[in-house]
Amino acid sequence: MADQKPPVAFIGLGAMGFGMATHLIKSGYVVTGFDVWGPTLERFKASGGLTATTPAETVADKPFCVCMVATAQQAQSVLLDGPDAAVTTLAQGTVLLLCSTVPCDYVQSLQKQLEAVGRGDVLLVDSPVSGGVARAADGTLSIMAGMSDAALEKARPLLAEMADPKKLYIVAGGVGAGSNMKMVHQVLAACQILSSSEAMGFADQLGLDLAKTQAAVLASDAWSWMFEHRTPRMLTSYQPIASAVFIIIKDTSIITSEARRAGFPTPMTSVAEQVYFSGIGRGYGPDDDSGLIRLYTEGKGKVGPVKGLAQTEEAKLALVLDLLKGILLCAAAEALAFAQAVGLDLDQVFDLCINAAGGSTMLQTYGPEIIKAFKEGTAAQGWTGGNVGLAEIGEKLRAAVEEAQRIKVPLFLGNQALSVIRLALRSGSPQGLAAGAVVKVWAGN
Amino acid sequence: MADQKPPVAFIGLGAMGFGMATHLIKSGYVVTGFDVWGPTLERFKASGGLTATTPAETVADKPFCVCMVATAQQAQSVLLDGPDAAVTTLAQGTVLLLCSTVPCDYVQSLQKQLEAVGRGDVLLVDSPVSGGVARAADGTLSIMAGMSDAALEKARPLLAEMADPKKLYIVAGGVGAGSNMKMVHQVLAACQILSSSEAMGFADQLGLDLAKTQAAVLASDAWSWMFEHRTPRMLTSYQPIASAVFIIIKDTSIITSEARRAGFPTPMTSVAEQVYFSGIGRGYGPDDDSGLIRLYTEGKGKVGPVKGLAQTEEAKLALVLDLLKGILLCAAAEALAFAQAVGLDLDQVFDLCINAAGGSTMLQTYGPEIIKAFKEGTAAQGWTGGNVGLAEIGEKLRAAVEEAQRIKVPLFLGNQALSVIRLALRSGSPQGLAAGAVVKVWAGN
Repeated sequence: MADQKPPVAFIGLGAMGFGMATHLIKSGYVVTGFDVWGPTLERFKASGGLTATTPAETVADKPFCVCMVATAQQAQSVLLDGPDAAVTTLAQGTVLLLCSTVPCDYVQSLQKQLEAVGRGDVLLVDSPVSGGVARAADGTLSIMAGMSDAALEKARPLLAEMADPKKLYIVAGGVGAGSNMKMVHQVLAACQILSSSEAMGFADQLGLDLAKTQAAVLASDAWSWMFEHRTPRMLTSYQPIASAVFIIIKDTSIITSEARRAGFPTPMTSVAEQVYFSGIGRGYGPDDDSGLIRLYTEGKGKVGPVKGLAQTEEAKLALVLDLLKGILLCAAAEALAFAQAVGLDLDQVFDLCINAAGGSTMLQTYGPEIIKAFKEGTAAQGWTGGNVGLAEIGEKLRAAVEEAQRIKVPLFLGNQALSVIRLALRSGSPQGLAAGAVVKVWAGN
Repeated sequence: MADQKPPVAFIGLGAMGFGMATHLIKSGYVVTGFDVWGPTLERFKASGGLTATTPAETVADKPFCVCMVATAQQAQSVLLDGPDAAVTTLAQGTVLLLCSTVPCDYVQSLQKQLEAVGRGDVLLVDSPVSGGVARAADGTLSIMAGMSDAALEKARPLLAEMADPKKLYIVAGGVGAGSNMKMVHQVLAACQILSSSEAMGFADQLGLDLAKTQAAVLASDAWSWMFEHRTPRMLTSYQPIASAVFIIIKDTSIITSEARRAGFPTPMTSVAEQVYFSGIGRGYGPDDDSGLIRLYTEGKGKVGPVKGLAQTEEAKLALVLDLLKGILLCAAAEALAFAQAVGLDLDQVFDLCINAAGGSTMLQTYGPEIIKAFKEGTAAQGWTGGNVGLAEIGEKLRAAVEEAQRIKVPLFLGNQALSVIRLALRSGSPQGLAAGAVVKVWAGN
């Protein structure tokens, strides 16, 4: 009986949830699924699942429940507040995995609400995931899980079933820590998704060939996972719709809300968020987020006979690469400083992010020196190590920003990164500062 | 003969230049005008002016020359580089008033170029103006003039003729200082023009009546000169076109270019500039800048059934006012810190700005404490005085930003101001910080 898999209730069979749930079926679990969208339930049955008609019916008598709805509001409804909410029938000592991306604030309040209604016995696991639909269906997701030791002991086999063995991160700090880890990862996602549109839009306005630009970026230190995965769809009219603007806005809003709650400044993510809202304004909300390149190219032909200074393809490409590197450095610094502010283990953050959708060469290169400075307590004031000067990265970014100004292309992230770098350079001895010292802006003193 | 007015050459008869030149005619000067646009010359003749067909012909034998073209490039062309440039026929010891808004960098290079071609005898006056077309025609402009003592002695009567007696500012620091003063003033203009659209767009999305909102702002501490002068046109479909988006972009680009040259961060102005470029992208470049409200309202009906928390008209109005106050505080701090960085006299900056288009109640209220901190050398680290806490202004701004996030309206300046305030609050003892302490972000250490 050691290999007997326990029954699992699964609430929320969207693109990600459906993949995760059917993977569990293939792995030998008996999975009872629920979703508000009827046709999905039919499909789930055809894939070998059992179905139920309410959250309460779904979870009844199950030792494990996975909740993979889209938002905290939906989680609150299916688990506690809605008609036939799960809480009424959750078995004693159920392990409840909340895999949705929600604010730390919310999942901690869920714990308290369960206690308040006399269900302190429920073993809540705060376990958001990352990796996309294909990895969900393969059981090779990145999962970042925070919970009590008692919950961990029971939840680990099920988490391991859904995660890549190298990408299951048990995050110290209990319930809320998993969501904080996901949030920090999404700082990189939010900035890097938009940076792909900003860089390619700038390239287009410079008159560069987009396919050549893409290849040059991918072969350079300006590489990011998001650039590699978003730019192909820029070359195919933003098709297929793999991830809508509305999706990243959901996560971005979690970041900025939690940052405001913590009194933490997020200049990079906040400006990205405003641009995403502008994208909604233009009607791009339901479109693939690669389509935001249009925010940067729509000015073509509307600015009169303005000309840039860069003449050669090589010079123009260098500007695009330097723009990206400046943005990616500042995004990495904002993410790591935020991780430090919410008390995460920076080495774990780094390991997770470079192996997930938040990865970038700039993070890989400069992350370690930022982390070292936080560990030594010198992030705010002193600074040691590093070879490439922050001033040099700033000067190259400046050249890109100036060229964009000449041809009147908005570079929201590029200008923000330059402001951040300038702020970092205003104190201390600027010529001696290593690139990672940009984190001084966030580190306070 | 004491009252005999000297002949004046006037190059650049646009809206401002035409008013200034015809005012001089009315005051008894013999004015020879030049412009590249023929019909303007006919109108100038009909107003009692003399005309010429080239810059060289215009300035020949005149002891005074006023140059009021639109850009540094145009000034360079008419004065030095173009066909029949003025430099070939400028009389010995001519007083040359450059009244165009140009970078400090440019007007200083103009001085050097004149010396390099053997015309060090020309008495260059760096004297940009502010106040609009009506005041140009009345001879009541604000003028900020930097020059040598020798040039001042000769130029003062002509400057006084064009300026309001209380608004002729002789700026210490020689050629370049006048342009720096104008540039600092335009930091306020650039931020405050856009803040008017951002606040009214937010109000519209909150469901407020725009005329009532306008009245409430004008009666409050959220007042600014720009809000008072821009919002009427928001109620009349952005007509008439009093100042096009392209115009403020010209000045904004001077600010950010000079700031980059000085290594000075301008987070407020830089984000405003990117939004202006977005305005061009949407085809609003030639429109009145009040029309930028459309960037904030275009999302109506595109975000689904999202709802804000503010219910009453009073609560909504408070959010709009708090948004503006946060922005205006940060704009004032950025302007004064930049003034300090380029070596201007802060009392003079303050006096000029509160009496010109850069005026705001927030500048009037908190400017003095910021200036005091710079004088005492405590702007970066220590902080004394002040009653209203920065944390309180930050909390109110946060409420506005959060409501906008709920209804998915971009608040570019509001979010930037919140980031700046958060950065200022991250060091020292946040609860004890006065509002003006926001300038710490710019002051370095």
